[in-house]
Amino acid sequence: CWHMIAFIFAFSFFFYFEIIFQNILGEIHDEEVEILPRKDYESLDYDRCISEPFVEVLEGLKCLNYLRISLLPTVEKCGDKGCLFLSLLELLAFNVLFVFIASIFVLIEPVAAGSGIPEIKSYLNGVKIPGIVRLRTFFCKVAGVLFSVAGGLFVGKEGPMIHSGAIVGAGLPQFQSITFKKIKFDFPYFRSDRDKRDFVSAGAAAGVAAAFGAPIGGTLFSLEEGSSFWNQALTWKVLFCSMSATFTLNFFRSGINFNKWGFLQLPGLLNFGEFKCVDGDKNCHLWTAVDLVFFVLMGVVCGLLGALFNCINKSLTKYRIKHIHPKAKFIRVVESLLITLVTSVVIFAASLLLGECRDLSPSSAPNREDINSTTRYFFCPNKTYNDMATLFFNPQESAIHQLFHQQGTFSPTTLLVFFLLYFLLACWTYGVSVPSGLFVPCLLCGAAFGRLIANILKVNLGMDIYAGTFALIGAAAFLGGVVRMTISLTVILIESTNEITYGLPIMITLMVAKWTGDFFNHGIYDLHIQLKGVPLLEWETEIEMDKLTASDIMEPNLTYVYPHTRVQSLVSILRTTIYHAFPVVTENRQHDKDFMKGNILISNNIRFKKSSVLSRAGEQQRRCQSMKSYPSSELRNVCDDPSIEVRPVEEGEDLLQQMLERRHAPYPNLCPDQSPSEEWTMEERYRPLTFHGLILRSQLVSLLIRGVCYAENQSSATQPRLSYAELTEDYPRYPDIHDVDLSLLNPRMIVDVTPYMNPCSYTVSPNMRISQVFNLFRTMGLRHLPVVNVMGEIVGIITRHNLTHEYLVAKLRQHSITI
Amino acid sequence: CWHMIAFIFAFSFFFYFEIIFQNILGEIHDEEVEILPRKDYESLDYDRCISEPFVEVLEGLKCLNYLRISLLPTVEKCGDKGCLFLSLLELLAFNVLFVFIASIFVLIEPVAAGSGIPEIKSYLNGVKIPGIVRLRTFFCKVAGVLFSVAGGLFVGKEGPMIHSGAIVGAGLPQFQSITFKKIKFDFPYFRSDRDKRDFVSAGAAAGVAAAFGAPIGGTLFSLEEGSSFWNQALTWKVLFCSMSATFTLNFFRSGINFNKWGFLQLPGLLNFGEFKCVDGDKNCHLWTAVDLVFFVLMGVVCGLLGALFNCINKSLTKYRIKHIHPKAKFIRVVESLLITLVTSVVIFAASLLLGECRDLSPSSAPNREDINSTTRYFFCPNKTYNDMATLFFNPQESAIHQLFHQQGTFSPTTLLVFFLLYFLLACWTYGVSVPSGLFVPCLLCGAAFGRLIANILKVNLGMDIYAGTFALIGAAAFLGGVVRMTISLTVILIESTNEITYGLPIMITLMVAKWTGDFFNHGIYDLHIQLKGVPLLEWETEIEMDKLTASDIMEPNLTYVYPHTRVQSLVSILRTTIYHAFPVVTENRQHDKDFMKGNILISNNIRFKKSSVLSRAGEQQRRCQSMKSYPSSELRNVCDDPSIEVRPVEEGEDLLQQMLERRHAPYPNLCPDQSPSEEWTMEERYRPLTFHGLILRSQLVSLLIRGVCYAENQSSATQPRLSYAELTEDYPRYPDIHDVDLSLLNPRMIVDVTPYMNPCSYTVSPNMRISQVFNLFRTMGLRHLPVVNVMGEIVGIITRHNLTHEYLVAKLRQHSITI
Repeated sequence: CWHMIAFIFAFSFFFYFEIIFQNILGEIHDEEVEILPRKDYESLDYDRCISEPFVEVLEGLKCLNYLRISLLPTVEKCGDKGCLFLSLLELLAFNVLFVFIASIFVLIEPVAAGSGIPEIKSYLNGVKIPGIVRLRTFFCKVAGVLFSVAGGLFVGKEGPMIHSGAIVGAGLPQFQSITFKKIKFDFPYFRSDRDKRDFVSAGAAAGVAAAFGAPIGGTLFSLEEGSSFWNQALTWKVLFCSMSATFTLNFFRSGINFNKWGFLQLPGLLNFGEFKCVDGDKNCHLWTAVDLVFFVLMGVVCGLLGALFNCINKSLTKYRIKHIHPKAKFIRVVESLLITLVTSVVIFAASLLLGECRDLSPSSAPNREDINSTTRYFFCPNKTYNDMATLFFNPQESAIHQLFHQQGTFSPTTLLVFFLLYFLLACWTYGVSVPSGLFVPCLLCGAAFGRLIANILKVNLGMDIYAGTFALIGAAAFLGGVVRMTISLTVILIESTNEITYGLPIMITLMVAKWTGDFFNHGIYDLHIQLKGVPLLEWETEIEMDKLTASDIMEPNLTYVYPHTRVQSLVSILRTTIYHAFPVVTENRQHDKDFMKGNILISNNIRFKKSSVLSRAGEQQRRCQSMKSYPSSELRNVCDDPSIEVRPVEEGEDLLQQMLERRHAPYPNLCPDQSPSEEWTMEERYRPLTFHGLILRSQLVSLLIRGVCYAENQSSATQPRLSYAELTEDYPRYPDIHDVDLSLLNPRMIVDVTPYMNPCSYTVSPNMRISQVFNLFRTMGLRHLPVVNVMGEIVGIITRHNLTHEYLVAKLRQHSITI
Repeated sequence: CWHMIAFIFAFSFFFYFEIIFQNILGEIHDEEVEILPRKDYESLDYDRCISEPFVEVLEGLKCLNYLRISLLPTVEKCGDKGCLFLSLLELLAFNVLFVFIASIFVLIEPVAAGSGIPEIKSYLNGVKIPGIVRLRTFFCKVAGVLFSVAGGLFVGKEGPMIHSGAIVGAGLPQFQSITFKKIKFDFPYFRSDRDKRDFVSAGAAAGVAAAFGAPIGGTLFSLEEGSSFWNQALTWKVLFCSMSATFTLNFFRSGINFNKWGFLQLPGLLNFGEFKCVDGDKNCHLWTAVDLVFFVLMGVVCGLLGALFNCINKSLTKYRIKHIHPKAKFIRVVESLLITLVTSVVIFAASLLLGECRDLSPSSAPNREDINSTTRYFFCPNKTYNDMATLFFNPQESAIHQLFHQQGTFSPTTLLVFFLLYFLLACWTYGVSVPSGLFVPCLLCGAAFGRLIANILKVNLGMDIYAGTFALIGAAAFLGGVVRMTISLTVILIESTNEITYGLPIMITLMVAKWTGDFFNHGIYDLHIQLKGVPLLEWETEIEMDKLTASDIMEPNLTYVYPHTRVQSLVSILRTTIYHAFPVVTENRQHDKDFMKGNILISNNIRFKKSSVLSRAGEQQRRCQSMKSYPSSELRNVCDDPSIEVRPVEEGEDLLQQMLERRHAPYPNLCPDQSPSEEWTMEERYRPLTFHGLILRSQLVSLLIRGVCYAENQSSATQPRLSYAELTEDYPRYPDIHDVDLSLLNPRMIVDVTPYMNPCSYTVSPNMRISQVFNLFRTMGLRHLPVVNVMGEIVGIITRHNLTHEYLVAKLRQHSITI
């Protein structure tokens, strides 16, 4: 029967490598970047958030995990008595069952698959991915990761925890849920994307803090991935949220595990233990300046390995998107189960066939007992342990502890085999349809590599080094090579080790690993974001993009509305376009007075335009009047100008009126309130339009649904007014224009959009360089950025799509060809 | 003679309290906020910096300090033998000499006084304070702090170290120095305020990192105080710089102090030692949830104490500004010497009269020996030590260590007396004319307070607490109450203690202390900034400021230049105004064609205006042409519009030209190129001006000096061109207009400023709310923000001055009165 197992094993590996290599060879250029819907951030309100509820859930994980591990003694008892195969079957059955349950959860809510970090990264970058912060996703994710980790898959629980934290952050302040419709309080605050984003930041930070016991690292994580605006108040709140999460977790874990309520001893779920020299040893040191050279080399190698990992995983994911996702859903479940089977069989076989029995080192250091309690004997004689089984048949955290702190060396063969198997299986597993983190598998993989290097240096070259440091640096380097995070990862690792002196080596190693890896491909999260076609905005544009200006990349074909528009036109615009915002414009025409005699619509529009022009003369007059009524102002003497004082107010206003009227340019043939038609000449089509503001699609639909309009023979003041609460009531799922019952609308009525539009959005000039445009867009978290020329006329609009790297590159290529 | 000393002591205290109370009672409202010159950030280039050179200098400090401390055995040997007075005199002489030298250094460079943190904070906020980052300041600061600390003053060296780090950061990449004119390489990069700011950020962060061994805290410090834009690349570089500083310092200190080169054991200059329970004690814990209640209470009390400290110090500083600074400089030296005398006598007298002799605790913990080595016997019998002398006659760092880690309790009386004396003397000392930090005195003061609380709880209430934690929390709370820093201080303290579990209590305490203190006044650094009249921008504006719009706060009286201006006009504008930037504008007039026949100047201006208008029609046409020449573009079908294709290019351009000409409004009476005159009517004075760009004063002067202009009968293309290097050559001290030799200039020549102006500065609409304006200004680090209305006409300009809190409050008051 060993033959059969080996055959299945070999076959499935072959099958997958076939796919991988096919895909690597045909490294494909068909990355159709599909653009997902986007979100924008406009309002301005922040508040604190403490997200704790998921902390207890995660304790359950340990129990399940221990249930599985507790099977092992059964296996060990078998010894050579022949029940080996039965034990293996029992183990397999458990694992398959657990992973099956995890897969079922993912079938219920597909976005619960994977680590969730790419999705949260996209969300914080400003891209909406449907369902990513829903309560159902939360339950599926938490339950799923419980079972997928317990099922013995090579997955971590840190990524899903960060995702869960973000969902808690997004959901808690809303006080309502789509999944449970009954949960709905009358709490109309925080109903904007901007507020929600802040809460998601805090939640993600709390997730990191709880996972690694790294509150500062968590805060930096959400800063690094999320907001580009360093807001002191927000940062402080996020830090407090992370601290609270760490504290709460610590409190409950210390209470539950040690029955010491109120004492705080276990900072994070994943803890690297204490790195310290044996007390008596005066020559011992954690690292020296000489070791840095090896760390740099390890950074290079791990950067390469990480790039390979990403490359293989990218090809696999592409294959999955192409061949597995379109098929029936149970195929995905079958894939997860196949991976489980292979994983279980591989670790069993490897431990049995390749593991070495080694002597236990004497317990000398204080924490040695804890370490030795997790060694596995696995058919080894007394006082020795099986090194391979110790690594494979332990929870991953214990295995990391073993590699970091176990003095008794692992054999180089074991470490190499472990590293290779883990590398391949983890790479295969990430992306399958179960909730699956990547942090811990990568750390474990890298720790094995680092320990291998330490073994070689110590045993073969006889150098005096601290093996645990090398394992830690290896772990950091490999993780850095795969995920390419920098600042936050450095801080997370420093905080997890609780050893500030590791800062410099970790930082240098991470930097080298990132540079090496970036030479070949992106980080794994970025790759997955890319494969999903999310229009992510980078931190900065390249210098060469500054050859382009805003006018080169803007979208010049505009669909616009007038300040006063007929219901008819609005409906037709909303039904025939998919834009999420429309500029509100007026036209530049000469004989405005003649037009005003025409109909009320046109004259209302013209009147709005005039009222909206704020000139220096008018402004100065207003100021001087207010100065006069304000006796003690020191500014008063500015206005003591005889030429102003002699003129009465009314005359001044008349003059202002005249000045404004005399100003506008002539387009006599054009009729306002007319949608663009095919017969228009270019001049008609692209006539100058003065920009007044932006109105969102959701707002227009709300106005139509709530009947906000006035009849032609009335004044616009008779139009009903909507409150802020009414406008945001439907957040985040606004009704569609196709839900509007047209029979209830009078098409001849006029809608005055001016009270609801955003009258002062940020604008850019057409000559502005891309780096400036990008900075403004990214920093302010905009969704639509109108391009306005020196005459105040709108000439185009810039959205996220126009600023993605791919679009800019295409435009630059085009630009260099035409020049 | 004791009478005499006591008399001098009492008199000087009385004298100063008199001043303090006078000032507190007459809490003055004459805070004339004087506006200093400001800086702006425009270009876009970053690079890395490693600032290390000042690290070694600081080692010297220790030596000097030990020299002084080594006097103490002499004093102790005296015993009762009568040489007491002589010893005291010897001590006094040393102290006075050292402080005198420190004062002399400050006389050489007055900005070297104080901690330098207010100055660096202002600098990073975007305000230029003359001389703050000069090499001379660096030398004076470093040498001065060496002697002021050695002179026994209650000052810290951390603030000056941060300042020194910032200077190194600012100076290093310039490769030239004003102080040493010979140091001048041909290195034309980083010659902009923006780059310099980044380097200063990195330098300040490195300073914090070196001072506290807190690289992450240092990075957060410069983020918190400085840039509001979270730039990933910059943050990474700053973090690397901080790490390098910590590493370098660690390397050299480990090497020099322990002769263990390559081993890294001493992270920061100020290190709080290891907080740990005695190994055998199972019931010991650093803190429990119950302790948090006391921490919050301590936060409240320390917030109040900090507010009192700030209040007293503010009054003192005001007194100094009013009465001491205007007088002869030696008065300041005398004041420092007086403080030295009083300090020395006080600590001597207090130790002798109020100190208690206490038993030494047995050395049980591993680091106990180090602690006991710094206890002072000071006339105490064998096996006992004088607790007051232990605190006073040690370097401050050792005293902090004593309070944190000495098991043998200090008597409550000693702690109280120590706290009170230290509080008053530190408060008196800060602001005197020597380089003086505030961190360590505040920490020491707070630690004494915390230890006092711990004593009361432990001895009087019999609670089972860890005294060191209370001392640490007290230190954090008092420092927080004085400086009101939040994020960075939390992280710095966590990193200094190297104990992540202290995060939550430190954070909560700091928050409570800050809230309590903010109820009364600002942090001490902000107070000193305020007293200097620096126009600092806060993080955010208050919600109520959103009642105002950009047009309410802008400066409507503009001094502007035309694209083509005569040398004559430029010189007169530059000589009669003090603005640092001028908008480049053109006028809106009807019969442009007629004017163009006039003279070349006017027609050049009109031509520029026309060419600068980029319209949708023109843009669309340009695009379609480029599409056609670019065969494979998928965008091509957009342009397959018959109405466009039939029209030849020339006709289109003509049409465009016509469109543009028809557009401009009529101001027939006004002559362009004419400075505003007193006789003008309001209409003339405030005629609409189209905004084209901004030009800096320094650029205009450079153009004039280098003779960039053309004759009336030539084309503007004949004007000589300046390179970027030529324009930035004189950075940061540009020549003044009064340095220009007018006899070399031909007043009739014309300057074309358009190649040198900034054509696409960010602009805001007059209706934009203050919070949005503020965000844009603060985030982008602007200096001038033009306000442009919907017609593209400039109506005003906003500078830093218009956004300071005081100005906004005044405007809001005015606004609410006129409404």
